[in-house]
Amino acid sequence: MKNKGLGDPRERILHTATALFAQKGFAAVGVREIARSAGVNIAMISYYYQGKIGILRAVLDRFFGLYNDVFRVQEMDSKSPEECVHKIVHNLVDFVRTNTELAMVAYNELPLDTPEIAEYKAERISQLIAKMKGLVSRFHLDPEDVLQMGVVGPSLVSMIFMNFRIRPLLQRIFKANFDDAYYQQFAHSITTLFLDGVKGMAAQKHVRGGAISA
Amino acid sequence: MKNKGLGDPRERILHTATALFAQKGFAAVGVREIARSAGVNIAMISYYYQGKIGILRAVLDRFFGLYNDVFRVQEMDSKSPEECVHKIVHNLVDFVRTNTELAMVAYNELPLDTPEIAEYKAERISQLIAKMKGLVSRFHLDPEDVLQMGVVGPSLVSMIFMNFRIRPLLQRIFKANFDDAYYQQFAHSITTLFLDGVKGMAAQKHVRGGAISA
Repeated sequence: MKNKGLGDPRERILHTATALFAQKGFAAVGVREIARSAGVNIAMISYYYQGKIGILRAVLDRFFGLYNDVFRVQEMDSKSPEECVHKIVHNLVDFVRTNTELAMVAYNELPLDTPEIAEYKAERISQLIAKMKGLVSRFHLDPEDVLQMGVVGPSLVSMIFMNFRIRPLLQRIFKANFDDAYYQQFAHSITTLFLDGVKGMAAQKHVRGGAISA
Repeated sequence: MKNKGLGDPRERILHTATALFAQKGFAAVGVREIARSAGVNIAMISYYYQGKIGILRAVLDRFFGLYNDVFRVQEMDSKSPEECVHKIVHNLVDFVRTNTELAMVAYNELPLDTPEIAEYKAERISQLIAKMKGLVSRFHLDPEDVLQMGVVGPSLVSMIFMNFRIRPLLQRIFKANFDDAYYQQFAHSITTLFLDGVKGMAAQKHVRGGAISA
């Protein structure tokens, strides 16, 4: 029985399924395989989660629960927007480092077609976008503008997630150590890239329509 | 028989499989389903592609073939680095718009564990990174530095792909039109965000180790 140190079967199923989904993708993993790896009877999966889609929903629930903490901007009104971004980036990097498999499953599965939970996904993403609106407006960008909201928030998230998605490849090509020092500097680089980039976007807003050299 | 307008069966299989993989994920699609949707006999899939993994490899081959054109930087030495980025971003946006399903499949499947083509994937990505090195060095960043190479290239790609990955969600939330005008402005915003961000990173290199406010 694997993972037997992980306490109750409900948690063990979730933990094992998250690891398998991250490695192979949700669709490639069967309940039988999850049950075997978690060392539980397959009936337990039905009992706790009503099947595989129920597990995915529980994985996403956990993801969004932790993820929301990353963006706790309501506490940040006293901080400058630069400090907010700095804090969010560091939180986000820490979160993905600590919960890599959970984050990868959410990132990989969110855009795929799972009709049973499509509504649920859209709601959770809308909540996240709503959270970002306050911060975006502090950079003199328009939070109701699909162009700006559709670039700014998703760009930040994807830059950070991308690094973890291709980590095995980066490791292979650059023979790097993905240690504390690396991630400290990584978060710092992303903060700079994003902050200077967003300020450039805000400045550009005032010259919109002007030609750029090509 | 669906897709019967699409010429020869080999191409029809590839086209149909790309659409199905994009929608459901590679692992969720069976050869039987591909054969049925493409209107071919299942034996044809074995004949042309030796099975499902062979189709995925052909999809990735096509992706990388087109994708490499996006980064034809050898022709760009006469241009300023800003013009190169501007051109690459516009190429990349056009490429993903024109080949959305192909791009989504490559993006989704590249980090997943498919041992049969792991070596192949690493080679193609290494080639892409090699192509980016010349451009990166023109921004006074170090192309051998995993931190800079691991941030700059992947950030640019992920920012653009992310928009297409969450387009149905953006459409739902913002009720936007993803037309030519949108993508013109989108490419312009990404160019600004990336260029100003990368310049900020290059400037920061010289003060590395200095504390940032937090």
